[in-house]
Amino acid sequence: MDILFLFPLKDHHEQRLKEAFPDVNFLFDRKPDDPAIGTSEVIVTYGADLDAAHIEKAEALKWLMVASAGLEQLPQEEISKRGITVTNVRGIHKTPMAESILAHILSGKRGLKRIYEQQASREWSKKTGSRELRGSTALILGPGAIGGEAGRLLQAFGVKTYGCNRSGRKADYMDEMLSFEGLTDVLPEMDFIISVLPSTPETRGLLNKEHFLSMKDTAVFLNFGRGDLYDEQHLIDALNEGRPAAAVLDVFETEPLPEDHPFWGMDQVTVSPHASSLSGKYVDRSLDIFIPNLKLWLEGKAGDMDNLIDTERGY
Amino acid sequence: MDILFLFPLKDHHEQRLKEAFPDVNFLFDRKPDDPAIGTSEVIVTYGADLDAAHIEKAEALKWLMVASAGLEQLPQEEISKRGITVTNVRGIHKTPMAESILAHILSGKRGLKRIYEQQASREWSKKTGSRELRGSTALILGPGAIGGEAGRLLQAFGVKTYGCNRSGRKADYMDEMLSFEGLTDVLPEMDFIISVLPSTPETRGLLNKEHFLSMKDTAVFLNFGRGDLYDEQHLIDALNEGRPAAAVLDVFETEPLPEDHPFWGMDQVTVSPHASSLSGKYVDRSLDIFIPNLKLWLEGKAGDMDNLIDTERGY
Repeated sequence: MDILFLFPLKDHHEQRLKEAFPDVNFLFDRKPDDPAIGTSEVIVTYGADLDAAHIEKAEALKWLMVASAGLEQLPQEEISKRGITVTNVRGIHKTPMAESILAHILSGKRGLKRIYEQQASREWSKKTGSRELRGSTALILGPGAIGGEAGRLLQAFGVKTYGCNRSGRKADYMDEMLSFEGLTDVLPEMDFIISVLPSTPETRGLLNKEHFLSMKDTAVFLNFGRGDLYDEQHLIDALNEGRPAAAVLDVFETEPLPEDHPFWGMDQVTVSPHASSLSGKYVDRSLDIFIPNLKLWLEGKAGDMDNLIDTERGY
Repeated sequence: MDILFLFPLKDHHEQRLKEAFPDVNFLFDRKPDDPAIGTSEVIVTYGADLDAAHIEKAEALKWLMVASAGLEQLPQEEISKRGITVTNVRGIHKTPMAESILAHILSGKRGLKRIYEQQASREWSKKTGSRELRGSTALILGPGAIGGEAGRLLQAFGVKTYGCNRSGRKADYMDEMLSFEGLTDVLPEMDFIISVLPSTPETRGLLNKEHFLSMKDTAVFLNFGRGDLYDEQHLIDALNEGRPAAAVLDVFETEPLPEDHPFWGMDQVTVSPHASSLSGKYVDRSLDIFIPNLKLWLEGKAGDMDNLIDTERGY
């Protein structure tokens, strides 16, 4: 059986796979136009390099393993039509992303940006604006693997967590739950509004200017999901009117963020270069998900695999 | 009964005290040379404004409530000789300080300083050096109220905590415990070395250059205790040799840190202006400790009061 990797692995990662599956023919670091795409039953990709024509050429393809969380760049129609199984690495980002979310929240509360600026000018001043996180409220838009991990950590800091998803059904580490329809009611009470929502038809444009303007004048909005959750001009206008007070943005409508974009120069905005999921452990974690799944696949138990994706819903 | 406050309170704080103790004569916002020092049974101070002569004049003084954590500026000999009861607000700092410690640790792991610098130059680069905190080790020198709270939070992030105190006796939220004598053995294994030790005869100069040089070349040293834990030149020399990799310092031998001090200009050092304990809730928290203690005092149960200090040991 051929398994095609559309990205390079380190030697010790290749070794780990070969030892776990001595009968599998792994083809590492190939391009999508490699002839082996026609004979491979499994393709492992980061997700941005396959188009509809590739899927058509991949005649033997039965399982697409996407080593990323977002699937919006895949030719979903062709994949769905062929009935190709898709898995991703949902949850792989939860540790670094939740750590980044907490890092930015705590940095804001404890005045770190001001402390760094003071050091640059050799200024000793206790006016760092330091406040306590304990006792705050946080709304988590998308309380899945990442949002739940952020919720767990926020609760450890004594923050009351509100989870918000499409249906309002219960999620881990959320003190309260609400559906998208309940958003308007709860936004004026929140100290932090954190989105980790994926890009789906339901989430695109979910937030509008009225949502932002209904936030507290002390609230901090954080977007670690996708940049199409709102029209960026709405957020800029609302920030300029003082509600919310600040924003920490890891994702944008256009990435890299254009050099002349207003966000760069706004004091109340932190621009993070879509870096919140980065850590030195990405490939190890991907293999931690892929290897048990491949065992199930070879045993004919594909339905038991972790992180199976409903390609019609897109997540 | 007269109770002398050597600092001002907000109206609602004064009100809270008068309502709780209608029979007590509170004297707010007085100076130490106020004649009422001679008739006051209780004095409430931040601790830096009383010398031996004041204690001598305070003939009726039986209980000194110090609304800070460090007692090293008090005339301890005179207080001890007179058998004056001393309480402090130990634990009041635990929330803001533990939040500051976590803020600095997470900021370092998730590359926040680099992210802020990139934004200032409108540079989009994912090379932020972001790494995961999970799976790290942390040594906490002084696992009391503050160190324990830092330990609790670090454990929530999947960090293994090692507590270190004089005796090595068990402390909350520490996976392992050791005494000061065991330091040398454990330092080479630690990712974070965090001191929240007070200044006492045993802690002054506790760390020397060999201790620093035995740390990992990736380790981060954080001092949120007192600046006399080591000779600063030893830390500077060790940092210049690359062990530890970085330091976050909230306390110094001389404060404010002199403008020509090397720490200001060292890339691997974060200078925090003794601000880690600051938050908007200080006086409320002090009264939360003082009011129940005053009730016990008036009932003749001084021995049951919280935060009684052994003035001979100094903490």
